[in-house]
Amino acid sequence: MRALVYRDGALTLERAYAPPVPAEGEALVRVLMAGICNTDIEIVRGYLNFAGVLGHEFVGVVEELSGRRAREQYQHLLGRRVVGDINAACRRSDCWYCQHAMPTQCPRRTTLGIGGRDGAFAEYLLLPVENLHLVPDNVSDEEAVFVEPLAANFEMLEQVHLHPSDRVLVLGDGKMGQLAAPVLALSGCAVTMLGKHEEKLALAAQQGIETRLLHASEAFTFNADERVDAVVECTGSAQGLELALRLVRPRGTLFLKSTVADKTTLHLAPIVIDEIRVQGSRCGPFEPALRALSLRQIEIKPLISARYTLDNALEAFDYAQQKGVLKVLLHIG
Amino acid sequence: MRALVYRDGALTLERAYAPPVPAEGEALVRVLMAGICNTDIEIVRGYLNFAGVLGHEFVGVVEELSGRRAREQYQHLLGRRVVGDINAACRRSDCWYCQHAMPTQCPRRTTLGIGGRDGAFAEYLLLPVENLHLVPDNVSDEEAVFVEPLAANFEMLEQVHLHPSDRVLVLGDGKMGQLAAPVLALSGCAVTMLGKHEEKLALAAQQGIETRLLHASEAFTFNADERVDAVVECTGSAQGLELALRLVRPRGTLFLKSTVADKTTLHLAPIVIDEIRVQGSRCGPFEPALRALSLRQIEIKPLISARYTLDNALEAFDYAQQKGVLKVLLHIG
Repeated sequence: MRALVYRDGALTLERAYAPPVPAEGEALVRVLMAGICNTDIEIVRGYLNFAGVLGHEFVGVVEELSGRRAREQYQHLLGRRVVGDINAACRRSDCWYCQHAMPTQCPRRTTLGIGGRDGAFAEYLLLPVENLHLVPDNVSDEEAVFVEPLAANFEMLEQVHLHPSDRVLVLGDGKMGQLAAPVLALSGCAVTMLGKHEEKLALAAQQGIETRLLHASEAFTFNADERVDAVVECTGSAQGLELALRLVRPRGTLFLKSTVADKTTLHLAPIVIDEIRVQGSRCGPFEPALRALSLRQIEIKPLISARYTLDNALEAFDYAQQKGVLKVLLHIG
Repeated sequence: MRALVYRDGALTLERAYAPPVPAEGEALVRVLMAGICNTDIEIVRGYLNFAGVLGHEFVGVVEELSGRRAREQYQHLLGRRVVGDINAACRRSDCWYCQHAMPTQCPRRTTLGIGGRDGAFAEYLLLPVENLHLVPDNVSDEEAVFVEPLAANFEMLEQVHLHPSDRVLVLGDGKMGQLAAPVLALSGCAVTMLGKHEEKLALAAQQGIETRLLHASEAFTFNADERVDAVVECTGSAQGLELALRLVRPRGTLFLKSTVADKTTLHLAPIVIDEIRVQGSRCGPFEPALRALSLRQIEIKPLISARYTLDNALEAFDYAQQKGVLKVLLHIG
């Protein structure tokens, strides 16, 4: 099959990559469409030492179920469109994380296109049957590709109780911020996006998000009384993090979502003095994300910058790394 | 009056410092005893730009109440032993923090011996009457001096629900760790102290705390399955923080208690990937600390390294900065 493979520092479109064979409990999924995420780009820059097929945002059709239990219990998935949790947990009875309903933190997990498991930029992929979620008929393929990153934003609402009366700031107007803002706004809180790109802020504004343009030269700051209940750091930069700490109120929450690969110099005293909660946040629940799309609560179409075929995946990857580009989709199946 | 004053980079015992005059709503407190805290030492090293009388851990006797409301409502405090919350809040009706029961985070607060308000290393101090707490008769003066730092450790239990079945690691065997460990152990959780000083670990062991000696040369690490639910960083060092991040389990809590003044280089990706909650923690509730001492739940006597008079305060300060020294007390009144 065709697959976009990262190995030994090189990204290659292989045309005769061995098709995967499902192990017991796994489903074989024919990939319809996939999305390029910043994590994919970081992997290609050397983050995480992954080797294999890239890609973890996808929608596909279940073609085969392996093992008797999978065939009996998940028969209803056959031939249907699905999205999938990217973390494949061990689910062993002696695994503390699996037994405490935290499969995404299982220390023996593999992660689709990120760690120990081939990903979605290929004609076929494998995932454990438990990871799959049916896509409602009124959710398009292009929308379904956004379920994984949307779910990751719903994780913040799982971790911290945001009140409808809270004020929240999304720092950064890129892909991550564009999904964080509308998801957090569902909680009723007042969300403002702070960014440096007029045209990207305009996209958020179209969704009813308050926006504020941050000029590169501006030493942006808030008065003590303006500081907000929560800040989501979506810039992935050390300066963004420092700014976030100045904008969150005492006893507020600072969500860290981007895995800044390099070491960051950080003044920790403000975290202690202001008793800030710095909350790391990664993968999240798929069902709320599917509901939000099915209920038309979140509009993702304006975030699609370009569509490519798998044959043009290398070109798509180049384009995804250009300034100003949001989501790049690969039409595969 | 006599007072230990820090000003223009110099620490001086002044013998004719002007005695404080209480404003309306304040109490004049005659100081009986005070304790030297690491924050005092950091201030003398240039942290926080404070100028004035140092000291914020104290027990004293209320000598005067100023203003009709204070005299009517707090009459019962006159002549009695008290300890006091060190943050004097504005308590204005338009202050978001004061109206949300967070006076310790009031942006207009002054802080005893730390910011904008003379402290406890003097014969007299002032605090708002609302800040004072009566000391039960069965709590000695020496014990009462520990109420403020004990309260700061109870703050962790206010912030995060530690379960009786949790495993917690206290990183550091100094003053801060020696109080954190027994306070957290009250929640029923299994507390282990990790330190580099055999004699200090022995003190914790006497209180029933599990201890583990960390050799300077040792590259200490845990297997994934050994990582704990919460870690309290009490070393105040960048290395301590890095170690703490390796020892806390995914979705666990890392408490930051020490205000490391210098900038720290920190790899943030593990916080995101493991979805760690990094919780800054500073001042806490006094009443639980007073109850713990009154009920003999916590034994502080072994933590007292030396006692000095106010006349020998400079010597006391020098001694407090020596290696291996825990709490140094000043007998004042």
